[in-house]
Amino acid sequence: MATITKTSPFAKLANDELDLQTKSNPNLFQSLGFETMVANIGLYKHKDDLLVIHFAKPADVAGIFTLSKMASDPVLWCKNAISNSGFKARVLIVNSGCSNTYTGQQGLKIIEDATKQAAEYFNCKQEEVLVSSTGVIGKPFDSSLIPSAILKFNELKFLPSSKNDYLKIVKAIETTDTFSKIYSQKAKIAKVLNPKSELDYTDITITGIIKGSGMIEPNMATMLGYIFTDASIEGSILQDMLNEFKEDTFNAITVDSDSSTSDTVLAFASGQAVHLKASSANDALLDNFKQALKNVMLNLAKLVVMDGEGASKFITIEVQKSQSYKQAKLIGKAIANSPLVKTAIAGGDANWGRIAMAIGKTLEDVKREDVEIYMGGFLLAKNWSKQDYSEQLLTDYIVSSQFIEIKVILNSGQASAKVYTCDLTHEYISINGDYRS
Amino acid sequence: MATITKTSPFAKLANDELDLQTKSNPNLFQSLGFETMVANIGLYKHKDDLLVIHFAKPADVAGIFTLSKMASDPVLWCKNAISNSGFKARVLIVNSGCSNTYTGQQGLKIIEDATKQAAEYFNCKQEEVLVSSTGVIGKPFDSSLIPSAILKFNELKFLPSSKNDYLKIVKAIETTDTFSKIYSQKAKIAKVLNPKSELDYTDITITGIIKGSGMIEPNMATMLGYIFTDASIEGSILQDMLNEFKEDTFNAITVDSDSSTSDTVLAFASGQAVHLKASSANDALLDNFKQALKNVMLNLAKLVVMDGEGASKFITIEVQKSQSYKQAKLIGKAIANSPLVKTAIAGGDANWGRIAMAIGKTLEDVKREDVEIYMGGFLLAKNWSKQDYSEQLLTDYIVSSQFIEIKVILNSGQASAKVYTCDLTHEYISINGDYRS
Repeated sequence: MATITKTSPFAKLANDELDLQTKSNPNLFQSLGFETMVANIGLYKHKDDLLVIHFAKPADVAGIFTLSKMASDPVLWCKNAISNSGFKARVLIVNSGCSNTYTGQQGLKIIEDATKQAAEYFNCKQEEVLVSSTGVIGKPFDSSLIPSAILKFNELKFLPSSKNDYLKIVKAIETTDTFSKIYSQKAKIAKVLNPKSELDYTDITITGIIKGSGMIEPNMATMLGYIFTDASIEGSILQDMLNEFKEDTFNAITVDSDSSTSDTVLAFASGQAVHLKASSANDALLDNFKQALKNVMLNLAKLVVMDGEGASKFITIEVQKSQSYKQAKLIGKAIANSPLVKTAIAGGDANWGRIAMAIGKTLEDVKREDVEIYMGGFLLAKNWSKQDYSEQLLTDYIVSSQFIEIKVILNSGQASAKVYTCDLTHEYISINGDYRS
Repeated sequence: MATITKTSPFAKLANDELDLQTKSNPNLFQSLGFETMVANIGLYKHKDDLLVIHFAKPADVAGIFTLSKMASDPVLWCKNAISNSGFKARVLIVNSGCSNTYTGQQGLKIIEDATKQAAEYFNCKQEEVLVSSTGVIGKPFDSSLIPSAILKFNELKFLPSSKNDYLKIVKAIETTDTFSKIYSQKAKIAKVLNPKSELDYTDITITGIIKGSGMIEPNMATMLGYIFTDASIEGSILQDMLNEFKEDTFNAITVDSDSSTSDTVLAFASGQAVHLKASSANDALLDNFKQALKNVMLNLAKLVVMDGEGASKFITIEVQKSQSYKQAKLIGKAIANSPLVKTAIAGGDANWGRIAMAIGKTLEDVKREDVEIYMGGFLLAKNWSKQDYSEQLLTDYIVSSQFIEIKVILNSGQASAKVYTCDLTHEYISINGDYRS
């Protein structure tokens, strides 16, 4: 389907990091309360294109979605289902190869037939079945394909309990991804009130998988992300946490300023691990869990940027001393989305004037004389003047670093925000110039 | 300076059209009331980098500028000068090779020394001297360079009266342009009240030159444009006309969503042609002139898009039946700036789903079921469904056409807007990846 000419230079890095974590924590990928199957239903020729997940008992669920006004029917289905089921889910069905967007009545039938069959097969309510689709827009498929596959669940199912199991799962939902994106983390939650010793705590696991590499921004990415935990958290509390963390994680990344019609992140809490239940998202009991959840969300988001179409460099842009978080984010995004900034970094060109340009074009209330611009450790511009830095060292930094840091200090307030993006290379053009061919 | 690997495929087209016009109107490039010089002051190695224009008598002048909050000092100078001189100008100085942006005190000195020398040499007020600069940000130059060149004006000056003279002029202000952009047009204005015959009218000429090919959007381009006419129009009336036409012309184009710190368009009316003077921009006397001025502005703007960095196709996006002009423009710009739409067209890929995506990401109040999407003559999507068109014919249209038409009908109101852009190719990356090297 896509013309992928090379693997992301970040693939090995991401994999090595996960292996390192797994080594120091052998049960990182322990079972999280669901069984699963993957299959090929003919939407892709050479890889699996269907994922079905079944929770042994109803999981608490929460979700965040694209804000697009052209949102796909699977997105609308999930929103309604989560609301109608009271944040409960039994089944998740994801297909790749077709986004079920702009698919008219046939698109609705695909969802209806799949969720109905799943509800029957797994003996649950239809609104406890969540669906996502990713791939080409405007091309529906035969609505019997998913139901037929569901009937083979008991034959094909497995209990995911290793990194490789999760790799199998995530590969089934990928499209133009050049490497598989998984992030897993442990956290401790108290089993009793006023815990006194180690024994009063239990380990919970949070494992996320995500697909996405282009059409990333704003307000999440062209991405489908699924986070699983064996912790026991009310769905509405999980929802509050997703809402709290989304701005600094999924909504802080951008590859190309384009925003998908299918963006979905769902978090499932299967409740297998026994611990005290929190009464709200602000309950101190959840401090550890929240920190871990935010970290998983941030790392999944960063993995998407690392696999940004054609990305050769990961760029972090921090805007400090801004009048508001919103302003800092907006200016950060303007820099992150500027094709001129992105191509300069791809070309190893220390062209910070383009950063100044991007700040200016937001039309935000910024005083040019107050702005400071940094790259790496170098102060480049201040007082509306170029500063005294070594052009050679700065160029070396850009050329030789896989991770580029841009910092802008506006000196007009106290708010700050971080945005993550990648550079814009020939590879992006190659990948997107003939996506459907 | 820039890595220009090939000339725009639109270069010949633009030149042929101008030659055709000149043939049918031999005095198209008649003298418009100013003398000029071009020179090399060392900012470029292989081409002229300074233009000085001197009006025999004070010209009426008006201007529109970048809205960037990081606007350059030349922009600020022009705004103040036009206001302080009461819309009058005697001299225009433009340099290429350095944008005089982020140049601190030295930047101000460059302007001060240049305008002071010009005022002395040409015996006018300092605020009657307008300056523009374009090129790299953050690198000031020796402030004696422009004054020294001005002293040679009488030695070097010429009276522009041919296409080639204007080519010489525009080449001195170009940076990454791959062809020179000139547009000229005649219009008739009445010499007497209640004109009865041809003899009661006089021909006036409007000739514009423009530079720019990247960092184009929004609210004008990375462009410097200068429009000259021998008509006699009050500066404030000229200003009203520029303001009236800018949205449909310079503010309707985009190459890469990036917006310069130096954008400037100035219009000069030397008043050499004798005719009735209008009392306001709405005076019926000006109907002909206004039509011609808008046409010159639109064609200059389109030439910039045609020379868009790496452009291989010119794309017109029309959004119809929108709730407001602002909404139509915003949605048009979102489509025009979508890297995914632009790369698809570059790759000859009829991927209209990306147009749907771009509409959705604006978060504008659009009902997806009401949206119709067209390319060329093909109706592609309607009623949230792919329509029945020939994929092969559509692909042929995209691959074989140099001018691509996208039309979106929102069916939610009566307003419409057009936006002009180009595709996104490997060439864009090559040009911008090592601009300064």
